[in-house]
Amino acid sequence: MNVVLIAVVSLDGRITRPGEPGPGFASPGDQRWFREALRGFDCCVMGRKTFDAIPPGGPEAATRLRVVMTRSAAGRTAVAGVEFSAAAPAEIVAGLRARGFHRCALLGGGQIYAQFLDAGLVDAMWLTLEPVVLGGGTPLADGIVLGANFTLTESRRLSHDTLLLHYQRAGRPLMPLPPIPA
Amino acid sequence: MNVVLIAVVSLDGRITRPGEPGPGFASPGDQRWFREALRGFDCCVMGRKTFDAIPPGGPEAATRLRVVMTRSAAGRTAVAGVEFSAAAPAEIVAGLRARGFHRCALLGGGQIYAQFLDAGLVDAMWLTLEPVVLGGGTPLADGIVLGANFTLTESRRLSHDTLLLHYQRAGRPLMPLPPIPA
Repeated sequence: MNVVLIAVVSLDGRITRPGEPGPGFASPGDQRWFREALRGFDCCVMGRKTFDAIPPGGPEAATRLRVVMTRSAAGRTAVAGVEFSAAAPAEIVAGLRARGFHRCALLGGGQIYAQFLDAGLVDAMWLTLEPVVLGGGTPLADGIVLGANFTLTESRRLSHDTLLLHYQRAGRPLMPLPPIPA
Repeated sequence: MNVVLIAVVSLDGRITRPGEPGPGFASPGDQRWFREALRGFDCCVMGRKTFDAIPPGGPEAATRLRVVMTRSAAGRTAVAGVEFSAAAPAEIVAGLRARGFHRCALLGGGQIYAQFLDAGLVDAMWLTLEPVVLGGGTPLADGIVLGANFTLTESRRLSHDTLLLHYQRAGRPLMPLPPIPA
């Protein structure tokens, strides 16, 4: 199974504005691309805060399994296609692989990204780089990450000022970027 | 006078490794480029910690004026070509302009970058993006920055995996990137 970290980041590596949940600084081009990119995945993993910040019916909600990492699943209302899990990243990935899933989108937030990167579980990163500096907010990787070196496979423009960067972990299977929607 | 912010950042927007001063993760390609890039400047501004982290005789030390921002210049040994200043960013820029300087390189660290960005004093950014995630360390902008939106003027590869990105503030004079040394 392929695990792809998908994120939109500011030039100073933030995935949220200070004091604001969700990627409110994402450009329209990134939002279009993100919807398109998600189609190729049969499952995704995110943290509880990221899950709570997603409006119901958004592209993340579509037809793929959503695994939501949380310290405690107690008190959570059951939602179709959503599984709450307190397991470690390696266990979650092994479990999804054993169940026959092929492509997993890792959707954040910063602590989840850091845990998966530090555990060496991220095969590729699709990073949208917006032309803005925020100076605060959640960092892309919120927690020390060791040995997360990547190869730059591709760089495209989503719009004049927004870059889409494809980084790949050496030795992992290459998953091509989906086309950029017009 | 043109102010250009020059920095090497990780994919999560850090300018240092956790607990380590200086850009220890900068690739050889970035180091070569940085030396070359500095030649075009007649002055530079940096924070006291950045100044202290620079080895004597490095490219930053060459022939241009260095302004070191510090809360107190007391007790500082005089160094040729170095001025310590407790003034605000706008005052420093106005002072350099009044003295006839033309091109100022802003060399960090994160608090200095944030102060200049927030004050709208940065005309362009030359960012080297290394293909690594650190998860800790000093962020590029260490302090809330409002309204720092840029235009992506150019993107080059310094090596296979390292990008050099040129961002420009709208309406400011364009300063072309120097050539990449072979």
